[in-house]
Amino acid sequence: MRKSSSTAEKHAFDDAELSLLDRYWRAANYLSVGQIYLLDNPLLREPLKPEHIKPRLLGHWGTTPGLNFIYAHLNRVIRARDLDVIYICGPGHGGPGMVANTYLEGSYSEIYPDVTEDLAGMRKLFRQFSFPGGIPSHAAPETPGSIHEGGELGYALTHAFGAAFDNPDLIVACVVGDGEAETGPLAASWHSNKFLNPARDGAVLPILHLNGYKIAGPTVLARMGDADLRSLFMGHGYEPLFVEGSEPRDMHRQMASTLERALDGIGAVQRRWRNGETENACPHWPMIILRSPKGWTGPKQVDGQMVENFWRAHQVPVANCREDANHLKILEEWMRSYEPEKLFDADGRLEPELRALAPSGARRMGANPHANGGLRRRELIAPDIGRYAVAVPRPGATMEQSTKILGHYLRDTLSLNQAQANFRIFGPDETESNRLSSVFEVTDRTWMAEIRPYDVQLSPTGRVMEILSEHLCQGWLEGYLLTGRHGFFSCYEAFIHIVDSMFNQHAKWLKVSRELPWRKPISSLNYLLTSHVWRQDHNGFSHQDPGFIDLVANKKADIVRIYLPPDANSLLWVADHCLRTYDRVNVIVAGKQREPQWLSMEEAVQHCQEGIGIWKWAGNKDGSTGPDVVMACAGDVPTMETLAAVDLLRTHIPDLKVRVVNVVDLLALQSREQHPHGLTDEAFDRIFTVDRPVVFAYHGYPYLIHRLTYKRTNHENFHVRGFIEEGTTTTPFDMTVLNELDRYHLAIEAIRRVSGLKAAHVVEALRAKLDEHGRYVREHGEDMPEIRNWTWER
Amino acid sequence: MRKSSSTAEKHAFDDAELSLLDRYWRAANYLSVGQIYLLDNPLLREPLKPEHIKPRLLGHWGTTPGLNFIYAHLNRVIRARDLDVIYICGPGHGGPGMVANTYLEGSYSEIYPDVTEDLAGMRKLFRQFSFPGGIPSHAAPETPGSIHEGGELGYALTHAFGAAFDNPDLIVACVVGDGEAETGPLAASWHSNKFLNPARDGAVLPILHLNGYKIAGPTVLARMGDADLRSLFMGHGYEPLFVEGSEPRDMHRQMASTLERALDGIGAVQRRWRNGETENACPHWPMIILRSPKGWTGPKQVDGQMVENFWRAHQVPVANCREDANHLKILEEWMRSYEPEKLFDADGRLEPELRALAPSGARRMGANPHANGGLRRRELIAPDIGRYAVAVPRPGATMEQSTKILGHYLRDTLSLNQAQANFRIFGPDETESNRLSSVFEVTDRTWMAEIRPYDVQLSPTGRVMEILSEHLCQGWLEGYLLTGRHGFFSCYEAFIHIVDSMFNQHAKWLKVSRELPWRKPISSLNYLLTSHVWRQDHNGFSHQDPGFIDLVANKKADIVRIYLPPDANSLLWVADHCLRTYDRVNVIVAGKQREPQWLSMEEAVQHCQEGIGIWKWAGNKDGSTGPDVVMACAGDVPTMETLAAVDLLRTHIPDLKVRVVNVVDLLALQSREQHPHGLTDEAFDRIFTVDRPVVFAYHGYPYLIHRLTYKRTNHENFHVRGFIEEGTTTTPFDMTVLNELDRYHLAIEAIRRVSGLKAAHVVEALRAKLDEHGRYVREHGEDMPEIRNWTWER
Repeated sequence: MRKSSSTAEKHAFDDAELSLLDRYWRAANYLSVGQIYLLDNPLLREPLKPEHIKPRLLGHWGTTPGLNFIYAHLNRVIRARDLDVIYICGPGHGGPGMVANTYLEGSYSEIYPDVTEDLAGMRKLFRQFSFPGGIPSHAAPETPGSIHEGGELGYALTHAFGAAFDNPDLIVACVVGDGEAETGPLAASWHSNKFLNPARDGAVLPILHLNGYKIAGPTVLARMGDADLRSLFMGHGYEPLFVEGSEPRDMHRQMASTLERALDGIGAVQRRWRNGETENACPHWPMIILRSPKGWTGPKQVDGQMVENFWRAHQVPVANCREDANHLKILEEWMRSYEPEKLFDADGRLEPELRALAPSGARRMGANPHANGGLRRRELIAPDIGRYAVAVPRPGATMEQSTKILGHYLRDTLSLNQAQANFRIFGPDETESNRLSSVFEVTDRTWMAEIRPYDVQLSPTGRVMEILSEHLCQGWLEGYLLTGRHGFFSCYEAFIHIVDSMFNQHAKWLKVSRELPWRKPISSLNYLLTSHVWRQDHNGFSHQDPGFIDLVANKKADIVRIYLPPDANSLLWVADHCLRTYDRVNVIVAGKQREPQWLSMEEAVQHCQEGIGIWKWAGNKDGSTGPDVVMACAGDVPTMETLAAVDLLRTHIPDLKVRVVNVVDLLALQSREQHPHGLTDEAFDRIFTVDRPVVFAYHGYPYLIHRLTYKRTNHENFHVRGFIEEGTTTTPFDMTVLNELDRYHLAIEAIRRVSGLKAAHVVEALRAKLDEHGRYVREHGEDMPEIRNWTWER
Repeated sequence: MRKSSSTAEKHAFDDAELSLLDRYWRAANYLSVGQIYLLDNPLLREPLKPEHIKPRLLGHWGTTPGLNFIYAHLNRVIRARDLDVIYICGPGHGGPGMVANTYLEGSYSEIYPDVTEDLAGMRKLFRQFSFPGGIPSHAAPETPGSIHEGGELGYALTHAFGAAFDNPDLIVACVVGDGEAETGPLAASWHSNKFLNPARDGAVLPILHLNGYKIAGPTVLARMGDADLRSLFMGHGYEPLFVEGSEPRDMHRQMASTLERALDGIGAVQRRWRNGETENACPHWPMIILRSPKGWTGPKQVDGQMVENFWRAHQVPVANCREDANHLKILEEWMRSYEPEKLFDADGRLEPELRALAPSGARRMGANPHANGGLRRRELIAPDIGRYAVAVPRPGATMEQSTKILGHYLRDTLSLNQAQANFRIFGPDETESNRLSSVFEVTDRTWMAEIRPYDVQLSPTGRVMEILSEHLCQGWLEGYLLTGRHGFFSCYEAFIHIVDSMFNQHAKWLKVSRELPWRKPISSLNYLLTSHVWRQDHNGFSHQDPGFIDLVANKKADIVRIYLPPDANSLLWVADHCLRTYDRVNVIVAGKQREPQWLSMEEAVQHCQEGIGIWKWAGNKDGSTGPDVVMACAGDVPTMETLAAVDLLRTHIPDLKVRVVNVVDLLALQSREQHPHGLTDEAFDRIFTVDRPVVFAYHGYPYLIHRLTYKRTNHENFHVRGFIEEGTTTTPFDMTVLNELDRYHLAIEAIRRVSGLKAAHVVEALRAKLDEHGRYVREHGEDMPEIRNWTWER
């Protein structure tokens, strides 16, 4: 085995070595084509016949040979330098390549023992690909060594950086396809280098793979000249190293020496920083720009049309092999051009001199434990929430900012896990705005660029990751979680929609990986959505949207949880609980403004554990006969308005029997069959009655409550108030009035719904109050004193 | 008025001119501060008192002086060169600046005559800002001259390019804040220059405004050195021109000459291309990088802490002016530092020598008709859909790819509007894949970079905008629509979630602008979602998500429409209809694969106009007594499976009375009160009966149907099948089986729900078919012949 040396120039690669490497690459290419095409005759021991071909040809050849080329060369340096490397395959379409390589190195068969390293196993390997009951055509949770789903493009590089944070010995090789490079999230991701600390973090080696084409046209980056590309990436803080061409021998030589240079460059940065030679600026890191033909080594032409090095190579380059003898011939010649008989022995095993080129054990990229993060996950050390409890001598007696209290908890969680370096907080420049600023007592914002004397809370060792890109926050956090760590993402509620699709794809990943016994559980992705719709009165309509919950509620029940803690103590319980869960997405919605506190810690714990409950202290004469009306609420502002409405009802109609129900765990409303937290029908009926009106004040779009409860006995008596898209710049209380979620509307609704209640005069009085409110805010620009100063007294 | 000259060096700016410009800038700054703070005493004619201050201080100062600086300088060149310019204010927080400037130039008072150009008007201007019943604190639809909402960041530059396309005489000045520059969509937007044709399009002048800070920390780009910035933007294809400093006189001089250079540069590129000196490469365009202090000219320090040129200047730099006499004093000194008495006359009117600095009429950026696109909108010329009708001699007799047929219609629409140059098609590299390739018979993909001899369908004059970024497609289209043109966006269904938040913000814009009589209607944003969940069997779970509809359905009824045409003729009607509407978002979901055609054009027109209807020809003995079961469907695949289920029921239980209902216009299911297309309860009951079971096969998540129908009489008998998150790589039919939306499951459900029906043996036979299917696909990798070859015969 060759030893590494300190500069790239010293490396001379002898022909024999590169020739072996080329054969290894051909083996991977052969297996990739086989997966796309073959049902049988895997090693072409007999002439190819139509019945050997799959009836539906589904897979992507175009990107694959380049991915295989990179994989083979990474194998070489992993062995030569004993490196710890994972491979992020940005071109999702490269599934066949990832599968082929993990099969060649043996990690595939270890995980899937039925896909043996012999002829029968190769047949299975080919057959299962993109086949019913088999494996997807993209890199996926099923793919060994992957933490990155092929499919929606844009997130390869953020995942790579997320994986590298706090993993000082890891190198994340990240292939970015030139299609993906056109996406917004990827374009922003290049700036991630400004957040990577060479002393405490690992390295990311971006490999921009310009194979020139997307599905049906050229790519933007591939048609940029080398000078522009160099300028662009140098501007981004990288040192681009080019590998360009198509002649395999020359390309192997270029790639081998360039990879050495890149690794030397990474080593140099790391040594400097780890020796304390830090700079007040981001270091420039090496990256590789690889220009190689799309569909490299595949058919040059099919039916007179250019295929190799053109977009026609994107998917299945020669498509009618079952029907068209000429196509079948092209395929056979193509496959035989790799000379499979020189790559695999009589039993279908990879020749030993080739097998020796793969790293062994956990150094194999398909077996690297970082890429099965649950293997490396250490439990988060969380403090006792009791330490942060807000004293609530009686309901409503205390005012507090709930997220500020949570900040204390997060601060100490950061401290407790400082030594094991596996917890970070993520958010788009809003940690302070979201009132989590206590965390800055023990850490800073991560910042690798220049720090000026008057700056505060910035440091290369900070554990709060802020960039004004929800995409990057989400992507970094996903990469961090997928490699076995913990994190917490706080975001303005309205703008979390920016990552709808990323949430979606992560939830899909979790669903599939939960079904794979070899994938060990990873920590949940925890969102705190604050600066929410009901307190965006100052920012106006563009900042008002509670719809993320609806998206989340579409997912499988075992993957998602939605919590709406009504006050600080319940928020503490919920956040602490979420941080201890795994393989889920938890969404917590909580306010950052001063608001009444309802529950002591003891009460909060009980209430949150149940997820939903009757607040007896808030109700009115709800005895053996049950209530006249149920006032239900979910969310902090709806809870306050509901209690204020109960207050009004008590004042105006003291004999009305009112029950107050508060919901923390939203999916408890669903049936037990639909969600593990769902209430049984009996419990639901006990709480909501079977025949009394339920006035439900809900944080988000009201339809969701109907969707969750439509199967319940009493559903037809549910009257839900929530956000009905009426928002603007106004006062906090006026926002609730515009959406008819305020105390007056709730009280009026209750009165209207209780049959036989004669209280027209009360309705009139309440309507007059609404008018008075309207006049007052337009005159004074703030809410009436009786609204601002309202407190719950009993 | 000075005349333009051809090179920047020739410009000499005399002190008097710059001094006037500076006063204009100070007037804008003064008005900006006034809006944030003052209830009264607008011109400080008396000493400032606490009661003059707003009770809630809501607004953003930090970015505003820089925006005002740019506005004043743009005014100068508009006058000097008689330019047609609109201003895109990327820093959404700059609302006060946009309002101040449009007030100064007079366009504000023209639109809002109650805000007069005198002392009383100024008082109103100040008072209304961020005040209940007033205007938002961000640039918004209410802001004259704006096509861009402040709020969610990332889309300024795509909007700018969208506005510039096909507007050869327009210059779009686009201020990009350094916060926004961190976002993904913005980062990708720089590549838009590769799609802008200097001969036929206008110009975008990006002004990257580095004021250094976000809410609570520095920005990534501001802490990059000039060398890296220059390299980055040169790599992106721009020629960056720097303006840096804080001393006003020097900054005015720099900005004036730099703006001249930039405009000269734009002119040079345009002349070259318009004279036919085209190059086979993108031209490099000028851009400006403006480094100026955050909160420039504001308080330097407050309470001993640095404010100007730091993030503390972000929002309200001095916050307790009502309570803290020192704060009040700082504010008064700050406001008086602009010398309002030298800017406004005794009546509160801008001094005439300053007013003369603003352009006049439609040249004022607040009155430019491009920024109120409906004013310039010309009707789309659409062909008669009858020309593309698929012959359907009897239901199911024809097989066709619906989107391919639509491609013919779009092709001719492109041709018909070629002369008025106001229609483009947008999509992320999927026009071909989505089977719309007929459009390439008359146009190409827009492509400004190198074109090689073997390339096809690429040209600088193409009207199909493809980039692998849904964000850019959406942003370009929004900019194009907002300036009065028409467009069509086709996208893979699963990945449209990438632009959830952009859809959201555009819908918000439409809601508000519809309420403003001066904003003229613009064309609707039309989505075609294809390559949908039921035909992503080959791409697998990552490509399977029909949830965008749920997001859309949360919006106000007058803004959104959702169509699920079951075949080609109905797709033609729907697309044609959508292209003729305005101020809406239309979502069309339709398949691209070969599928049975049900309706002749005449039938399709009638069915689509009604939006929902009983398909009598598909039902069975549904006479005077009504059906035993209603089989409802929405979406092409659900329709096919429903008809196949009806087929099975007819074979096995010939006496069962089956009614088939098809839904095209999804929101017709809602009540008339909720949506203008909603069916009356009477009509709904007539179609769905009041007591018979309804088996509803729906394209998306089944919950939505419940949400839309829960108030209907017969809702409790609705049994909905749809996507329940069960997806993978398999066969098309197996996808429906996994989600229990297939013919067998539907037929079984119908049998189970019809009370008193004795058909256990049929259920058993159908279950056996499901088993047979499962075995077959896993063995053969394709669907059973009886599934593949099924046709509707009657």
